[in-house]
Amino acid sequence: MRTVFHPALDDIPLHQVMNALGSPVRLAVVNALLDGEVHQGSEFDFGVAQSTLSHHVKILREAGLVQNDPEGTRCLLSLRAVELEDRFPGFVELLRVMKAAG
Amino acid sequence: MRTVFHPALDDIPLHQVMNALGSPVRLAVVNALLDGEVHQGSEFDFGVAQSTLSHHVKILREAGLVQNDPEGTRCLLSLRAVELEDRFPGFVELLRVMKAAG
Repeated sequence: MRTVFHPALDDIPLHQVMNALGSPVRLAVVNALLDGEVHQGSEFDFGVAQSTLSHHVKILREAGLVQNDPEGTRCLLSLRAVELEDRFPGFVELLRVMKAAG
Repeated sequence: MRTVFHPALDDIPLHQVMNALGSPVRLAVVNALLDGEVHQGSEFDFGVAQSTLSHHVKILREAGLVQNDPEGTRCLLSLRAVELEDRFPGFVELLRVMKAAG
């Protein structure tokens, strides 16, 4: 199985997380993962090509926001919610509140 | 006195705020304004040229984060903390916690 680099959250500055969420597509990806479940990327349609989505997921992964593990031909995707909450207290809750508010 | 456009917070999507804070300089500007006071831009040294700082402040202003009013030759700068809290509950507090944590 390929291994993919996931940074330690302690190494991530806040501005990098903010930058990662500073795009409508990437914020939509994170919103889709707020349910805490492990998803396949192919479950969602964010209105962009697969290659574009992969680019966005890479930025989210490198900012410590998502866990993105290849499994065979599939690619599993989840939010690193517990680690994010530990590193940036209140952040995940803020995203939940904003998602609920539309 | 020149008037400068400040958007209504209701018109600002979360990803725009995130994007505005997705730079070390802009996050530093907002951190410097978290005391809730009105400051002059010239009080601070963010390690960038004045023209560069003006560009960053414009992005923060257009994202609804800061109030930036010219007053004679000075330029007054403050965080729109109350409006931000109303639009994005928990956001300003998150910034305060992260600033305190270093």
